[in-house]
Amino acid sequence: MSAENVPVLISADWGTTALRLYLLAADGSILDRRSSQQGLMGVANDQFASVLHDQCADWLREFGALPAMLSGMVGSRQGWVEVPYVSCPAGLSELANSAVSIDVPGFRSVNIVAGVETTDAMGIPDVMRGEECQIMGALARLTPTEGTFILPGTHSKWVTVKAGQITSFQTFMTGEIFAALKDHTILGRMMEQTVSPEGDEMSAAFARGIDMAAQADTPGAWLHRLFSVRTLGLMGKFADKDAAAYLSGLMVGWEMAGLATNGPDHPAILIGGRALIKRYLWAAQLRGIATIEAPEDCVCAGHMQIAQAAGLVQSQNRETND
Amino acid sequence: MSAENVPVLISADWGTTALRLYLLAADGSILDRRSSQQGLMGVANDQFASVLHDQCADWLREFGALPAMLSGMVGSRQGWVEVPYVSCPAGLSELANSAVSIDVPGFRSVNIVAGVETTDAMGIPDVMRGEECQIMGALARLTPTEGTFILPGTHSKWVTVKAGQITSFQTFMTGEIFAALKDHTILGRMMEQTVSPEGDEMSAAFARGIDMAAQADTPGAWLHRLFSVRTLGLMGKFADKDAAAYLSGLMVGWEMAGLATNGPDHPAILIGGRALIKRYLWAAQLRGIATIEAPEDCVCAGHMQIAQAAGLVQSQNRETND
Repeated sequence: MSAENVPVLISADWGTTALRLYLLAADGSILDRRSSQQGLMGVANDQFASVLHDQCADWLREFGALPAMLSGMVGSRQGWVEVPYVSCPAGLSELANSAVSIDVPGFRSVNIVAGVETTDAMGIPDVMRGEECQIMGALARLTPTEGTFILPGTHSKWVTVKAGQITSFQTFMTGEIFAALKDHTILGRMMEQTVSPEGDEMSAAFARGIDMAAQADTPGAWLHRLFSVRTLGLMGKFADKDAAAYLSGLMVGWEMAGLATNGPDHPAILIGGRALIKRYLWAAQLRGIATIEAPEDCVCAGHMQIAQAAGLVQSQNRETND
Repeated sequence: MSAENVPVLISADWGTTALRLYLLAADGSILDRRSSQQGLMGVANDQFASVLHDQCADWLREFGALPAMLSGMVGSRQGWVEVPYVSCPAGLSELANSAVSIDVPGFRSVNIVAGVETTDAMGIPDVMRGEECQIMGALARLTPTEGTFILPGTHSKWVTVKAGQITSFQTFMTGEIFAALKDHTILGRMMEQTVSPEGDEMSAAFARGIDMAAQADTPGAWLHRLFSVRTLGLMGKFADKDAAAYLSGLMVGWEMAGLATNGPDHPAILIGGRALIKRYLWAAQLRGIATIEAPEDCVCAGHMQIAQAAGLVQSQNRETND
């Protein structure tokens, strides 16, 4: 094994429904990975230490006591240890300084990264846990120091970064509300039971939803527009199979309606899995907004950056830097 | 029994979850009323005729074969007989002409009023079933011939009336989406299990929701604003008991944000039960918009008007007319 392939850090994205683990070399390359369903909801009686140890047992046996860097809901009130939120602006040093370290036999140390909080001009707080590490990873991989980062999901995050620090952000409940509307309102009544994933081409129904969402409307017009998912089907104006794609287009379209027109020099940066990201790319494309995709596995790149800033791993120039 | 107290019509509001029946005199006064849980979902194997007969058996026995006028989802594809929608503009004569008559032993005739359909400038259809009769009743009781009528509910209807006819309308999914958000998203997680009904005074949390909803925002800002229900609780900025009132304020506020400022001579007319209507009155009051409440039981007043227009009941001047 060459020096570049020596593991120096275990990275864990530990959320509500899943645990994703990476074994990382000093240059950030991924030497091994695994995932399990043991998210917070799958861990009984606070058995976080033993679950983590079981998942990493062979790595620890083979490579000795490694440090681990964890992020996500594992640091929440419902998780292993509640790590207080760090306030904006938050960059690598704030995240490194705010991480909480736990002694777990077999590990050199287990460190949980803090979430980030912000408060808007109206005094409304907002919070994230886990996305801050993806942002730090995307900054390292793509080397911008500012911009708008969009992380689609159950709770999408829109994050403003300046000088390498998260300065503000907003949560959009797009994914969770899509699911609630589909599964628990009349809008899902006529949808096909299994929504087949969109192919590589945008469907006409999805595009129609994007167009509809972009209408200049009163703040509550969405309560009316959503009913069109029902009436277009009821009146035979589209097929049952189109209803879910149209609703998805409406929801993504509404989220993306807030994105200001930009230029190719200031693209919005999308972070997440390809299946979800592509819908956001389509929505941006329809409105002529520049976007780029971050590479996958930004979270472990972020963990490596934070571990280096915390002195847990020796810093070095990484191959992917220029 | 005086002539004014002779029953001439059975009126039935037959929806998805309830059946409400009225026994009416020629002057429109309610001689008897009853309600049952036998909405569409409670009627097995298309037993509509026998359910209706059982509910009315004593009336028919005592007063002979009366005509009945029915409206609501009973006229839908999932109901007794599918009555095709009538298009806007729709007034008394269009509704009388479009009603479908069924022979049911014991009744002089059973008549189901058509729902109404409209199509907006974008080609999106909208539909109502049942509210058209409430509107006709409110027109008879309040004697305006035009205005904006708002019928709050699971699917709120906003109806424009000109010269006694429904000329256009919009559905807002306010009630159904409130329930889906409360019962099937994280927003309901911290709410008290039983939401106590608001008293006669508007709560500060409800008013805060109304204010927030009135913000001039991008079309998708609601996806972000809703997350404040979670974060305000998470950060201890309001008590768990306030969360539902705040969410209710947001939802009603968004629906009402579309109501144009008017003058006392052109109040919007609210139709519905007092418990729901009061939230809409508060929202209008906060924004300085004139509203009035229609009297209760508009639906049977509408049925009487339509029955007279259809020649099922002899027309006469009603006491409540001037």
